[in-house]
Formats: sequence, C-alpha cells, structure tokens
Amino acid sequence: MKKSVGLQTLLFPMPALLVGTYSEGDVGSAMTAGWASVCCAEPPCLGVAVRQVRKTHENIVRTGSFTLNIPSCDLAEAVDYLGLASFHSVPDKLARAGLHVERAARVNAPLIIECPVSLECKLVAHLDLGCHTWFVGELMDTHVEETLLSETGKIDVGRLDPLCYAMSAKDYRHLGKVVGPAYSMGKAKDKGK
Amino acid sequence: MKKSVGLQTLLFPMPALLVGTYSEGDVGSAMTAGWASVCCAEPPCLGVAVRQVRKTHENIVRTGSFTLNIPSCDLAEAVDYLGLASFHSVPDKLARAGLHVERAARVNAPLIIECPVSLECKLVAHLDLGCHTWFVGELMDTHVEETLLSETGKIDVGRLDPLCYAMSAKDYRHLGKVVGPAYSMGKAKDKGK
Repeated sequence: MKKSVGLQTLLFPMPALLVGTYSEGDVGSAMTAGWASVCCAEPPCLGVAVRQVRKTHENIVRTGSFTLNIPSCDLAEAVDYLGLASFHSVPDKLARAGLHVERAARVNAPLIIECPVSLECKLVAHLDLGCHTWFVGELMDTHVEETLLSETGKIDVGRLDPLCYAMSAKDYRHLGKVVGPAYSMGKAKDKGK
Repeated sequence: MKKSVGLQTLLFPMPALLVGTYSEGDVGSAMTAGWASVCCAEPPCLGVAVRQVRKTHENIVRTGSFTLNIPSCDLAEAVDYLGLASFHSVPDKLARAGLHVERAARVNAPLIIECPVSLECKLVAHLDLGCHTWFVGELMDTHVEETLLSETGKIDVGRLDPLCYAMSAKDYRHLGKVVGPAYSMGKAKDKGK
C-alpha cells in the first residue's frame, strides 16, 4: 500500500555528474549535477538541470557549450565538494578538488581529465522552469577512457564504477550486480501470445 | 587516456522507469523509459524522453498528464517487456506484463500499483528535439510504499532495490553499496582553505 508523501522529487537511481564550463578568461569550472538525462536519440541530445544562481548557468548561456563528465566512485569526495563549493566564493575550487581540465575538440567547454567518460554538448534548447533551467545540448563528441573499452567498443561498467546518487537517503552508491539483459529478458512475457 | 568513440549518448547510471498514461477510454498504458530526470526543485518538475511513434507520446499530449513509476528489480522482466512491446500491436501489454493500475489523485494518468514509488505529473512544457520529445511535468503528488519509509520519512533505498539501466552494457543492475554521505564527504577538500 502506497501513501502520499507530498511533493518529493524522487527518482532512483540518478548519476552524480560533473558539468564542465568555461568562466571568463577560459578558466575551467565544474559543478556537480544529479539531475541529467539523455533527451533524444536522433539528433543525440543530453539535458541537465542547473540552478540559476550558479556560475555554471551563466557560463552555459555565454558560451553555448557544456560537457557532462562521468566520475568513478573513487572521485566521490571531489564530486561532493564541487556540489558544496561555489565558484563565486571559491574560484579555484577545481584545483582544490584535485581535478584538471583539457580543451574539448568541438565545443567551448572543458573536459574533466580525471573522469573516465566525457560528453561534449552544444546548447540547442533550454527551459526556464523556476529556480532551475533545463539545458539541452546536442552531443558533438563522446570520449571514453581506453582501458574501459572492450574489443567490440562496449564499456566495462563494472570497472567504470560510476558514482550513483540516491535521493532521500542522500548518499552516493556503487552500481551493483547485474539483474539481466535488456531488450531480452522481457521476451518471456510474450510466450502466451 | 580517453579516446573519441563518436556520438554515443552515455550516462551512468540511469533509472528504468514506467511511464503511466491513459489511452482512449481510460485504458491504462505503460511504457518503459530509461531517459528521465528531475528538472527543477521549485516548482518541482520531472522530465522524460518519449519517442514520437509511441502511444505514450499521443497519450501525454491528449491528457496533459503522466506518471513516473519506479520499479524494484523483481519487476525487471515486466519492465523489459513493456519496453519491447508496443500498445499499437499489443493493447493488453500491461496485463500480459502482470501489472495493474489505479487512478491518480491529481492528474489524468494511472499509477502502476506494483511499483513502490509513483510520481504524478501535469504536463507544463515540452521540447520536440527529433525522434524524441522531452516532456516536462510539474509534480502534483508523490506516493511511496509505506513499508519502505522510516520513521523520519526517508526511503530505505536498499529495500526499494531500484532497477538501474546500464547503457553500453545494455543490462539492468541493482544499486550497490554506499560510498559515503552526500553534502558531507566533500568537506574534507576544504581543510586547506
């Protein structure tokens, strides 16, 4: 039996990502985001929610660019710090977090070197919804740490060990064991057809 | 060292959700979605990507309503089936999946009874991006299985056992062990300040 718990924005699981942008003078900046998703397959688009008071918000509007960077669990402390600290008061927060950036190939935003997956996005749409803006970027390139790729180009998700954010519990978690294959295990339900 | 792998829309982890809508005649329908996110805190909004060929797309536009329902891992077979089967060719796919619906309190869309968390959303914005539309709904109510709630109202995420979708590997996974507390473990990075 379910009960109403009021207006709690609960989704499980969500990723804990770093949004990479350039502040004025091409100073690399990163903000932690737990609200992001693929938005479209063709053209490939990704979206992320950013509070309007954030420096990252201003940077995305000015540069028309952002990157989404997927951290492994060993970066949890740095990721949490980049969610707590504001560029407005700690402009060197990226260095304090022990992270480094490099230029993206196709957009005006930095890749976070220590994150094993980085996605370059060119701003194509946005929705001002309230305290957050939902920014949508068209994917321009995807970068993956070579050692995580199999011969067929698939990512070894176990070794990637992506950092997961659990709302309500307010903690970070590992991704766990495999339940079963997608686009396959549901076929059993069709047997009675 | 990262290498470019072309345009791969990779995010880890993502939830495997069921989108609940009404087809004509208040027939409950559900579609599996792996691309969804909270979009705004105030007002609370959630978004989901839906292919334009899907019955769910037509239903959301017609009713201005949808629900997002979070399944536990024990529903993996049903969830996978609801991603494979189309309402257009299998109108009773919800029954075949062994799932049931009940009326939502505040929107014109059904809750999936078997899912331990359900979110009622009223359509407030959308972006037609290409083969998918990104629908944004304002959260009108949140329902949680009572047995998952602690005395302080927090969800026991371990018992919820949410179904996670791992792109690239194309499989479903459990959420794993705790890495550390959010809004807390990053404070260690501030010690040199």
